[in-house]
Amino acid sequence: MKRISSRDNASFKQLKKLAESSKARRKAAQALLDGIHLLAACLESGMQPRLVAISENALDHPEIGPLLASLPEVEVLQLPDALFNEITQLDTPVGLLALIDIPPARIPSNAGFCLMLEDVQDPGNLGTILRSAAAAGVEVAYLSPRCADAWSPKVLRAAMGAHFVLPIEEGADLPALVARFNGKTLATRLDAKQSLYQLDLRGPTAVLIGNEGAGLSDALLEIANTPVRIPMPGQIESLNAAAAASICLFECVRQRLK
Amino acid sequence: MKRISSRDNASFKQLKKLAESSKARRKAAQALLDGIHLLAACLESGMQPRLVAISENALDHPEIGPLLASLPEVEVLQLPDALFNEITQLDTPVGLLALIDIPPARIPSNAGFCLMLEDVQDPGNLGTILRSAAAAGVEVAYLSPRCADAWSPKVLRAAMGAHFVLPIEEGADLPALVARFNGKTLATRLDAKQSLYQLDLRGPTAVLIGNEGAGLSDALLEIANTPVRIPMPGQIESLNAAAAASICLFECVRQRLK
Repeated sequence: MKRISSRDNASFKQLKKLAESSKARRKAAQALLDGIHLLAACLESGMQPRLVAISENALDHPEIGPLLASLPEVEVLQLPDALFNEITQLDTPVGLLALIDIPPARIPSNAGFCLMLEDVQDPGNLGTILRSAAAAGVEVAYLSPRCADAWSPKVLRAAMGAHFVLPIEEGADLPALVARFNGKTLATRLDAKQSLYQLDLRGPTAVLIGNEGAGLSDALLEIANTPVRIPMPGQIESLNAAAAASICLFECVRQRLK
Repeated sequence: MKRISSRDNASFKQLKKLAESSKARRKAAQALLDGIHLLAACLESGMQPRLVAISENALDHPEIGPLLASLPEVEVLQLPDALFNEITQLDTPVGLLALIDIPPARIPSNAGFCLMLEDVQDPGNLGTILRSAAAAGVEVAYLSPRCADAWSPKVLRAAMGAHFVLPIEEGADLPALVARFNGKTLATRLDAKQSLYQLDLRGPTAVLIGNEGAGLSDALLEIANTPVRIPMPGQIESLNAAAAASICLFECVRQRLK
């Protein structure tokens, strides 16, 4: 284990850049996993981190010792708590960060259950949606260029490991994907005539979810072949993007269970 | 319109306290609505604010003039942007804050569609859940004492007006409520035998949602009469609390539409 004590250390500077800058993450094709749970999900998928950083505070953590012992080939850095806290974005960090190469997305060629996200900008929402999609068995998530950075620490944290089981294509050309999708392309909108619960969703289905404020763009609304409304019998007609996505995805799950 | 320029002004100090302290909000039984949408939702419910604060920056906003003109009896304060920004929690504030008396919750005596939240601590999650509940037509939301403060600015923002159509009881004794609920009390757990989609949810139903990390307490799991699992065919079995709540509530919606 190598101890680092200076802010001028090259590894520390690299970690800090990756924590803060989506540009740096894209350039290096690397990301940071904050906490034990995400590293465990990464390892479970068969991936190894490049580097693990531990805060002094965490040296005695009962789960961290065995975890490191299981990774004899991975470089481990030890950081003073003050330096570690400059990198982590958790309020109560466990004191473990892993640096990984972002895995190439293995996009299936003929997915029958897709998610397409247009300009979902809140990292918490994006992560929550990816988590629901992975749990629902979505085969691929396509993200428009103006979505939040899928590999940012906040999205990774909210997604709770979804990144390691769900292929994610960033910068996707959604209009082209919708146009050539061979099945139902569901566009939620409040004024749609058809209810989500009237549709047969057992065949190939792509669920489209739009920006938190603006919803789906006219460009996508025009070409999606299945406008759909989530019935809302309450006194407000309004759902969070992640709630709407989860409801649509799990209606697909329900119908496919039969 | 009264202009305020000093941090020592009593109204400014009161607004700041209400923005920052849940204790202050409870003591005064008052809360702050940040932005036009929340004030509109409040007005639509028939409530009037006690006071509206406007930033200098917002004086020319095209929606704010007519809004204030429709409230001739409400006191309006004008604040320099610097002072306003000490109160708002929005990154890009529109420049309008309204001070309201927290309305008394009109709890229906025999609600057939309830939500019970145990120790949901993330304000964004809590607000998103209340928003889904209001859209689903839930009749009352009961919050355990260790839930986040329902009237905090972050919860209000995420709930997008749900507070004005959904009765919310904070500090609720959930074990007592579950014990005397005359219908199904649904407790989601990964190891439950029954699937959500096998249940008949058309009768009286209470949906129980637990803490983000720990789930429902053993105390509630023991007395809830309907343990239930959301089927997750994907490679992770994990949902955000707000996603799980939305899926359960809208399965009730779906069944009741028939």
